[in-house]
Amino acid sequence: MVSLGLACLQPAWAADVALPSWQEGPAKRAIVQFVTRVTSRGSPEFVPESERLAMFDNDGTLWAEQPVYIQMAFMFDRVKALALQHPEWRAQQLFKAVLEGDVKALAASGEKGLMELAMATHAGMTTTEFEHLVKDWLATATHPRLNRPYTECVYQPMVELLAYLRANGFKTYIVSGGGIEFMRPWTEQAYGIPPKQVIGSTIKTRFELRDGIPVLMRLPEIVFIDDKAGKPVSINKFIGRRPILAFGNSNGDLEMLQWTAAGSGPRFMGLVHHTDAEREWAYDRQSSIGRLDKALDEAQARGWTVVSMKDAWKTIFPTLGER
Amino acid sequence: MVSLGLACLQPAWAADVALPSWQEGPAKRAIVQFVTRVTSRGSPEFVPESERLAMFDNDGTLWAEQPVYIQMAFMFDRVKALALQHPEWRAQQLFKAVLEGDVKALAASGEKGLMELAMATHAGMTTTEFEHLVKDWLATATHPRLNRPYTECVYQPMVELLAYLRANGFKTYIVSGGGIEFMRPWTEQAYGIPPKQVIGSTIKTRFELRDGIPVLMRLPEIVFIDDKAGKPVSINKFIGRRPILAFGNSNGDLEMLQWTAAGSGPRFMGLVHHTDAEREWAYDRQSSIGRLDKALDEAQARGWTVVSMKDAWKTIFPTLGER
Repeated sequence: MVSLGLACLQPAWAADVALPSWQEGPAKRAIVQFVTRVTSRGSPEFVPESERLAMFDNDGTLWAEQPVYIQMAFMFDRVKALALQHPEWRAQQLFKAVLEGDVKALAASGEKGLMELAMATHAGMTTTEFEHLVKDWLATATHPRLNRPYTECVYQPMVELLAYLRANGFKTYIVSGGGIEFMRPWTEQAYGIPPKQVIGSTIKTRFELRDGIPVLMRLPEIVFIDDKAGKPVSINKFIGRRPILAFGNSNGDLEMLQWTAAGSGPRFMGLVHHTDAEREWAYDRQSSIGRLDKALDEAQARGWTVVSMKDAWKTIFPTLGER
Repeated sequence: MVSLGLACLQPAWAADVALPSWQEGPAKRAIVQFVTRVTSRGSPEFVPESERLAMFDNDGTLWAEQPVYIQMAFMFDRVKALALQHPEWRAQQLFKAVLEGDVKALAASGEKGLMELAMATHAGMTTTEFEHLVKDWLATATHPRLNRPYTECVYQPMVELLAYLRANGFKTYIVSGGGIEFMRPWTEQAYGIPPKQVIGSTIKTRFELRDGIPVLMRLPEIVFIDDKAGKPVSINKFIGRRPILAFGNSNGDLEMLQWTAAGSGPRFMGLVHHTDAEREWAYDRQSSIGRLDKALDEAQARGWTVVSMKDAWKTIFPTLGER
């Protein structure tokens, strides 16, 4: 059923072509209505293209984040790949836990342990070398439960949404807690988002001349964690202009959504709600990864768009071989 | 005289229209030849638009930097404006030096003194409040020797070069040691460079809810100095792709030029050389601001383009009232 409100909006037909994996329903309707409002020339809510900035969290918003963040899977595989060069790791509880798949010991090591693993696997090489490591890993690794390459664990409806926004003059950005250089090698192909529109957590790099050739060495030191209150900070730093649309899926995205909502003029704030235990996962208030309670409450209180995966999406993942 | 080499290049005619303030000569020829090489379809040196990234230092490259960096003039004026609220400054040597125009005492305070002044004048307000301070100051302040608004102290030939590059599918960026939020309020109007393409030094900001309204507070803590070896680091962080063109004017730009030069395929590295004591300033190896010795030697050794202001530019500044 096409609502009366929708029938009078010009590009709505275009959305049917552009968003085939979205069910007709409130989420799709809210998206199309928003895009129509800000792109209709002469409308009092028209927004010029230079201000059509759309922010997307990555893990759990654009691609799957269960059972562990995909960058963590990369990290564990790196530890295994490097173990032969590091016989001493066998005697270290943290690395031993990874090598033996001891999830309980890993969880006990907490954030500190994860950081230590991250630094051991993400630093000590040039930016170019790291880029190759990421690409090589993605070329062969597969998701343990979804049984597909990680770059095929993206959400097809969100890929369509990104393309729909760009077709309507938006610039689409990723604003993720994930590593900026972990994402940039593949986001253009997976989402159509070029490196310069990828914002994320950063580690320190140092410019060096190596046999006269300039390189950037990745150092084992976190510079910035692009999560929670860090997200509006990094949006302001990288872009210098407030977005008009933001999409997340967890409490880590709340401040980005608040920052977006606080601008003047039309705004769109969205949350992907993982409600589909059958086709993906169902988790929110109790999950250690992608916990969603505070942001869900605020979204409901303020009328932000909550996209229930189970209800709003006809398909979750791309058909293999079709991309 | 049009050289034979130039005559066979397609868009050369366009350059005559686009670069009217440039003398016919080696600098203009090098620019036009480079742009022609990378934009000619079917040429083995063709570069797709997504990789046509051009970096420009700001102080001394796009606008004047003598007798002091323009941001320092802003800082001194802020100290004077805030002095009434800070009677204690009268008793502090550093602030007293600013209030009394004691250049010698200021110079003696060194970089540490300047940082202290910067933090006292650039922090303690929201990002939006700071933006207004910068805009308000620029609306009324004038350059003490050039007798023109600071935003009219831009180099007309460089403004034309930026537009010429954009007309040829380049994305133009600023990569400056100056404060990122000091530049963003005015670079779009002055240079056609939008906030998201301005990279610079950053101070810490903190997301806060003020009476329920999200703001970003500017804190008195330097996060990153975007100079020297910091420039390739920030280019990699903000853009994630190596530029094919870089322009600077001092040793602080050397690493950015080296990083640009080290990529594969056609590259352009340029230096503005301040050789015009009459129309602007003449300085290089001995100057405390914008010192140019090491980078000049390397440019000459490697055949980078050195633009002698006196010889290469017909005019230096825009005609007042024409912009």
